[in-house]
Amino acid sequence: MNESTFLQTLYHRNKKCYQVFPDKHATESFIDDLFHLCFVPKNNGLGGLMAIQRDYADLKVRFQSIVSGFLPDAKAIDDITNQFFEKIPEVYEVLLADAQAILSSDPAAQSLEEVLVAYPGFFATAVYRFSNVLWHLNLRLLARLLTEIAHSKTGIDIHPGATIGHSFSIDHGTGVVIGETCILGNNVKLYQSVTLGALSVDKKDATTKRHPTIEDNVVIYSGATILGGDTIIGHDSIIGGNVWLTYSVEPFSVVYHKSEVKVRDNNPFPEPLNYVI
Amino acid sequence: MNESTFLQTLYHRNKKCYQVFPDKHATESFIDDLFHLCFVPKNNGLGGLMAIQRDYADLKVRFQSIVSGFLPDAKAIDDITNQFFEKIPEVYEVLLADAQAILSSDPAAQSLEEVLVAYPGFFATAVYRFSNVLWHLNLRLLARLLTEIAHSKTGIDIHPGATIGHSFSIDHGTGVVIGETCILGNNVKLYQSVTLGALSVDKKDATTKRHPTIEDNVVIYSGATILGGDTIIGHDSIIGGNVWLTYSVEPFSVVYHKSEVKVRDNNPFPEPLNYVI
Amino acid sequence: MNESTFLQTLYHRNKKCYQVFPDKHATESFIDDLFHLCFVPKNNGLGGLMAIQRDYADLKVRFQSIVSGFLPDAKAIDDITNQFFEKIPEVYEVLLADAQAILSSDPAAQSLEEVLVAYPGFFATAVYRFSNVLWHLNLRLLARLLTEIAHSKTGIDIHPGATIGHSFSIDHGTGVVIGETCILGNNVKLYQSVTLGALSVDKKDATTKRHPTIEDNVVIYSGATILGGDTIIGHDSIIGGNVWLTYSVEPFSVVYHKSEVKVRDNNPFPEPLNYVI
Amino acid sequence: MNESTFLQTLYHRNKKCYQVFPDKHATESFIDDLFHLCFVPKNNGLGGLMAIQRDYADLKVRFQSIVSGFLPDAKAIDDITNQFFEKIPEVYEVLLADAQAILSSDPAAQSLEEVLVAYPGFFATAVYRFSNVLWHLNLRLLARLLTEIAHSKTGIDIHPGATIGHSFSIDHGTGVVIGETCILGNNVKLYQSVTLGALSVDKKDATTKRHPTIEDNVVIYSGATILGGDTIIGHDSIIGGNVWLTYSVEPFSVVYHKSEVKVRDNNPFPEPLNYVI
Amino acid sequence: MNESTFLQTLYHRNKKCYQVFPDKHATESFIDDLFHLCFVPKNNGLGGLMAIQRDYADLKVRFQSIVSGFLPDAKAIDDITNQFFEKIPEVYEVLLADAQAILSSDPAAQSLEEVLVAYPGFFATAVYRFSNVLWHLNLRLLARLLTEIAHSKTGIDIHPGATIGHSFSIDHGTGVVIGETCILGNNVKLYQSVTLGALSVDKKDATTKRHPTIEDNVVIYSGATILGGDTIIGHDSIIGGNVWLTYSVEPFSVVYHKSEVKVRDNNPFPEPLNYVI
Amino acid sequence: MNESTFLQTLYHRNKKCYQVFPDKHATESFIDDLFHLCFVPKNNGLGGLMAIQRDYADLKVRFQSIVSGFLPDAKAIDDITNQFFEKIPEVYEVLLADAQAILSSDPAAQSLEEVLVAYPGFFATAVYRFSNVLWHLNLRLLARLLTEIAHSKTGIDIHPGATIGHSFSIDHGTGVVIGETCILGNNVKLYQSVTLGALSVDKKDATTKRHPTIEDNVVIYSGATILGGDTIIGHDSIIGGNVWLTYSVEPFSVVYHKSEVKVRDNNPFPEPLNYVI
Repeated sequence: MNESTFLQTLYHRNKKCYQVFPDKHATESFIDDLFHLCFVPKNNGLGGLMAIQRDYADLKVRFQSIVSGFLPDAKAIDDITNQFFEKIPEVYEVLLADAQAILSSDPAAQSLEEVLVAYPGFFATAVYRFSNVLWHLNLRLLARLLTEIAHSKTGIDIHPGATIGHSFSIDHGTGVVIGETCILGNNVKLYQSVTLGALSVDKKDATTKRHPTIEDNVVIYSGATILGGDTIIGHDSIIGGNVWLTYSVEPFSVVYHKSEVKVRDNNPFPEPLNYVI
Repeated sequence: MNESTFLQTLYHRNKKCYQVFPDKHATESFIDDLFHLCFVPKNNGLGGLMAIQRDYADLKVRFQSIVSGFLPDAKAIDDITNQFFEKIPEVYEVLLADAQAILSSDPAAQSLEEVLVAYPGFFATAVYRFSNVLWHLNLRLLARLLTEIAHSKTGIDIHPGATIGHSFSIDHGTGVVIGETCILGNNVKLYQSVTLGALSVDKKDATTKRHPTIEDNVVIYSGATILGGDTIIGHDSIIGGNVWLTYSVEPFSVVYHKSEVKVRDNNPFPEPLNYVI
Repeated sequence: MNESTFLQTLYHRNKKCYQVFPDKHATESFIDDLFHLCFVPKNNGLGGLMAIQRDYADLKVRFQSIVSGFLPDAKAIDDITNQFFEKIPEVYEVLLADAQAILSSDPAAQSLEEVLVAYPGFFATAVYRFSNVLWHLNLRLLARLLTEIAHSKTGIDIHPGATIGHSFSIDHGTGVVIGETCILGNNVKLYQSVTLGALSVDKKDATTKRHPTIEDNVVIYSGATILGGDTIIGHDSIIGGNVWLTYSVEPFSVVYHKSEVKVRDNNPFPEPLNYVI
Repeated sequence: MNESTFLQTLYHRNKKCYQVFPDKHATESFIDDLFHLCFVPKNNGLGGLMAIQRDYADLKVRFQSIVSGFLPDAKAIDDITNQFFEKIPEVYEVLLADAQAILSSDPAAQSLEEVLVAYPGFFATAVYRFSNVLWHLNLRLLARLLTEIAHSKTGIDIHPGATIGHSFSIDHGTGVVIGETCILGNNVKLYQSVTLGALSVDKKDATTKRHPTIEDNVVIYSGATILGGDTIIGHDSIIGGNVWLTYSVEPFSVVYHKSEVKVRDNNPFPEPLNYVI
Repeated sequence: MNESTFLQTLYHRNKKCYQVFPDKHATESFIDDLFHLCFVPKNNGLGGLMAIQRDYADLKVRFQSIVSGFLPDAKAIDDITNQFFEKIPEVYEVLLADAQAILSSDPAAQSLEEVLVAYPGFFATAVYRFSNVLWHLNLRLLARLLTEIAHSKTGIDIHPGATIGHSFSIDHGTGVVIGETCILGNNVKLYQSVTLGALSVDKKDATTKRHPTIEDNVVIYSGATILGGDTIIGHDSIIGGNVWLTYSVEPFSVVYHKSEVKVRDNNPFPEPLNYVI
Repeated sequence: MNESTFLQTLYHRNKKCYQVFPDKHATESFIDDLFHLCFVPKNNGLGGLMAIQRDYADLKVRFQSIVSGFLPDAKAIDDITNQFFEKIPEVYEVLLADAQAILSSDPAAQSLEEVLVAYPGFFATAVYRFSNVLWHLNLRLLARLLTEIAHSKTGIDIHPGATIGHSFSIDHGTGVVIGETCILGNNVKLYQSVTLGALSVDKKDATTKRHPTIEDNVVIYSGATILGGDTIIGHDSIIGGNVWLTYSVEPFSVVYHKSEVKVRDNNPFPEPLNYVI
């Protein structure tokens, strides 16, 4: 394929895409500014309430612009915009409770402000909660794009279709994966590299519940993997680090990985340990 | 060292560097725009083919500018630019096959468009394939910089010198590491936190094959680690989650980590599990 | 809560925050430019020493602006600014030694320049070392914000309060977590997904040493987890991949995870391995 | 004065100025955007009414920011902002009548839209009318700055303190000067390089009426100069090109400059005419 | 009219305008970049021919975007774009001859480069010549907008419908006005504040020739005014400064304003001269 | 000439120009920022002296960059930069005296700040004085470009080679032209549309004194034209509006244009006055 044919190809493929693609950069700055307006004020407060009203009005117009490409007409754009923004105050209150849960459970957190400004788990949760509203408004590609933006910034990959209760917290978070049909109760806490995944590989099973249910007050430590749509982690359980679990456990369970560690206290080092990665 | 001496030091060190450093920000926006031109069109299609031609011409000029700092003369700049851009149509077709492979194997993926716009594994693969061309044109620092940019955005760290066959897919992807001398066949699928690493630590062995070979149709689940230049994973094998492997396995192997998990169904919690991280 | 009440709520909450929040975007571009001035020169050297002096003066003014919101008066702003910038030359020299350590120990690294421009471990270390100065100047929220910025870019989460000796190196790095009260000696090397965490969960224990001590010349391979404030890894030890350790080991120890891996060489695949994540 | 002393001098002078100077660039983009919102819409209409509300809210916040430097407190800022914006709809209607007057009297004007987008006389009139509101709100330096911005763009210099009736038109306009205490009636039309100036030179006379009065339905052709606070041009008069007038004329007067022109029909050219400028 | 009604009014008025208004800012940067590409190269030449091709392709796309609002369909946009750009090489050559004429006739001009970069008369002429092409392609509002942009920058107001021969020059230029139906021959030179205007005021006469004809090799000095559609200035004539002319003169005429100047060599000053403006 | 040939032509012409052209946009923002640093502070004073030092250092680097294209080597660039910046404090003081002269002589000026921020005559004078330094450093094209920038913004065209004494003031200013070899004494005041021009047309006379000399304490009213290298306006003279003068006058002269104005007090209007322009 020479350059001229290649550019023709791009042109014809791209034309088809204008109807379905949200603008990635516009979407990224939209969610960033929505998050900042709610939790991390950007300016010095001079404009006061007037400035907040202006910024909120601006977010609405930008949202209209983002969704305009893949909705049929101006009325649909206005309806979706109104439905999304009507939900924001409610989502905001749920998120403040999430932030409070992080503050309560992490000894290193010194203030609610630190949680808002410097906890990637809080940011990923916020983007998930906004995206989940869009998912239920049937803006699925936009919802997925938003959680991917949060994934890119935080290493935390929450599917917008997942169901997560209140007072949810993630600490550190890099490597966390939460699948589409997960159901999480209230007061769940996850550490880094936790996977809540599926067992079914068949594309025809895409609409069934493929991911686990985590009941209230469960803590899951770093590196744990829980798989399967029928797997239920009973409430008030603790799942230890690196555990690999494909079946249900009762409420109040404590699950831990029995790891055998060998220590050799004298040198020279055994050769197979001298690797680099 | 006082401020004045410090700035002098920076000045003398930096002067030396102008010959060897690609401009990080220019490189970042170059690869971002190249990816978008090929897969995620940015504008509303008004300019049509003319706009695509303009954008492609612009990418060429920006590429020239990026490589101009570390090539000897205008002719070398033009030659490298032409060689790189001649390869792009071919890389584009290979990447469309990668996207198709992701769509086929992930039940959560709803359309090819979703894969193009919202799968970090696809983005990292694309940047790797473009970088690999540069690696073979001997622009090694630039190639490395590009894959580091993808690493920063996706948590997926693929060395530009690696060899990867067609229909390659990575899901979620955070924490994936693929070393310089890896050889991957066709239809390989990786999940998050997979490491394909080396065993040799000695700097003098830097030019030997230090990383494993993965044959066709292999799936490697999350958290698996495969190490060593002589390690070959035979075709049509499955490597389970958290497996740690430093030797070869036959074709059609199924390898899984035999994990012992203990469950205690009554509280109070044993003290050593009450940790935070 | 209707829109009007919601915006009033944001207004009143945000007003309180102006005194305590550093501007996230200004902080992000500040640390990025400081890093580039020191290690990855951006322009073509034309302006020479004059340009470096100008850029350094610019960084000072921007630093003043960032800290101005949460310091009482102009004198405090000037004092903190001077104290921070006086430390920079010293931090710079320590960081060059870190870069040299990475170059020496990684066979894939081809030049010091590659380390400076394309190693996320080096970037995260640099941001940590600058933040650590701020932590000791009692600018704790700003210090935390800075390391979170590095976490977002690299997947490496180092608390600014941690203590880390010279010639420190991290390779790949995605998923690394280093807690607030960790103490690391000299010549420590970490791979991806290493966690150095705490065992205590009680908020009242926030001021005690909750994270481990790693002595000189220790290497910790990918996926290893070391927990607890009393845990000491003796000097010249090697901690293998995926090891989970909650107690001390002697100097010159070699610790490895005894992993049982099962291989079945004939198909059909056992059902429970056919999962997706 | 060496550089160090010079910068100290600037610092001390400038500090005094922060209280009294509106920000020139912010002011320039404010008036430009206010004019465009009212008369020359910038975008493609997608955002609809919502976008106009947002832009108007934005203009208010920016106005607050511009005046914040030289008003005593937040209440004064809010009051002035409200008073100015309450006047805008009224000014808007007067300006539409001005545009209509231009369209009616200029055979080259093809549509009202052409007048709005491409007549510098209309732009200068619009800026004058907005500035005149500010002048009467006692924001005199800001008002002056605004008309200077229009002067710079159009070559038309109207003092914000001047009084001008409805249906006012200026054609071409370069070089027009209208002084502070001028009073112009309705349906006045001016051509380029018309000066309406003062006769008094004494600083102590700064508060008296120093500039002429032009009654309704007067046309003043290019290059005419009319001077003096007691000079009254009676209604329905015509003032010819290049007229120099320092006394009053009756209503329905026609005033013209009796110019003697000499023509010599054969060459060579007389030397004193061979000049360049 | 309250604010809400006012914004509704703007909304309804503006909606009507989207079909007819070219975007003022896009137009301004388009003509600026076209002028610079042709005469005042902006960059350092690195990109070479490739960069010029890219910039030219970019100008085409931007032109398409500017005219897209007021043309019926994609085909019309493409046709107009192609017709305009096909004329550019020819216009370019005529403009180089204009620049050469300025260089030859102005003793202060030291090089052709100085004329290209620093003569407002040359810039205004260039914009006029480009606009004149658009005028004849029936893009009249766009053509007018372009000459108004040049008017704003230079104080020189040339109507895009005027007809001007080759080797045309304007020196200084502030205040020059050239009307729509003027016809100027070759080698005409104008100084600042020259008006070539109309005598007819009636809107119904808008389509007749209302402005004068200036034949070849005429020089018109500063402040001269020539009016009327039947007025013809014969070739090789000189029109002196401040002349006011409403009738034709023969070829080789020399026309000068017989100005009576009085000098009083002793003080005190007569009161009527002590004016300010 | 087809498009391909045309772009080749531009490429070859432009290549030649890179050595001689200052970058117009960089030059424009340089002079704007230099003016603002000296007279109209942009920010809110937070950065204090440190910010001024940074901005001054920045101006030096940008000046280096502007002149780098047409100077032979780094040493020449440094020398010219130092020589120009050493002159700035002195020019600054002369300009403050100019501003004071404007304040004293214009009854409409209410404060020194108004003069600095809103008098185009002051801006044009400032740019002239900076350009005059460059003219004498032999950077003639750059000096001309700077005064053209001021001409474009203010309509005031002062040649950088002119010689102008202290306490110089221009009011309104649109249309003022001051030629290259003019010599103006101290306390000279000009109004709008004053021309100080040449009589010689011959290119070979380009190096002789072609423009007039204006001695101390002279006022020249609007529209006056004074021509010729031998023309000397004696000190303490007044030149009235619209005067056309090509010979010298004694000190203490009062020169005025004896204008005959006819008034007809009854209608209908005589046809020849019913013109439009």
